[in-house]
Amino acid sequence: MGFREHLQDVCRSCDGAVACTLMGVDGIEVDTHVTDGGGIDVKNLLVEYSSLFRTAREAAEAHEAGGVAELSISTERLVTVARLVTPEYFMAVALTPEGNFGKARYLLRVTAPKLRSEL
Amino acid sequence: MGFREHLQDVCRSCDGAVACTLMGVDGIEVDTHVTDGGGIDVKNLLVEYSSLFRTAREAAEAHEAGGVAELSISTERLVTVARLVTPEYFMAVALTPEGNFGKARYLLRVTAPKLRSEL
Repeated sequence: MGFREHLQDVCRSCDGAVACTLMGVDGIEVDTHVTDGGGIDVKNLLVEYSSLFRTAREAAEAHEAGGVAELSISTERLVTVARLVTPEYFMAVALTPEGNFGKARYLLRVTAPKLRSEL
Repeated sequence: MGFREHLQDVCRSCDGAVACTLMGVDGIEVDTHVTDGGGIDVKNLLVEYSSLFRTAREAAEAHEAGGVAELSISTERLVTVARLVTPEYFMAVALTPEGNFGKARYLLRVTAPKLRSEL
């Protein structure tokens, strides 16, 4: 099963999911599956969100809080949950505010190890 | 009821909470209640996390995702949930990884309007 199939599976299994991506912490995507951005440029938004991982990592390391595992950002029109797959790559799901946030977190947790083994 | 009492109330009501803060999005705190940082410099970590709000806001506005409402950052040793109270101020709870994340989110949602009315 390739990256794309895993990303599609996550979108299919989570109510309200509009996109799922595997991306470098440097903002360079490996693969992204977008079902419906609803007028939002989700791909480029996720690229910009990648800098949050870098900032959070520097802050957490500086204050001995350990490595960053997960981030979430909720805006009026889009909820994004992201999980580190390896120190260099993260996986993220973007969903509508009415979408299933808990399911998205769960799917990232179970899918991340599968992607890790293929990276 | 002053800011400090609200922050103390949140810490008391949430299993695993180690700190609760009311802070400007510019990183200047209004008030912070720390119960037990467990060796982590929670106050300064929260100051550094404030920049995540600024970055997320710029990214979300640029891509028409609307205003940022909530952020969460999970590291190996600390989970932080933050919610915008007004466009200029946010409230955040830091808790241990075993703490009650859902309760922290709930308490921010019900406490934010109380703080807003006093700001």
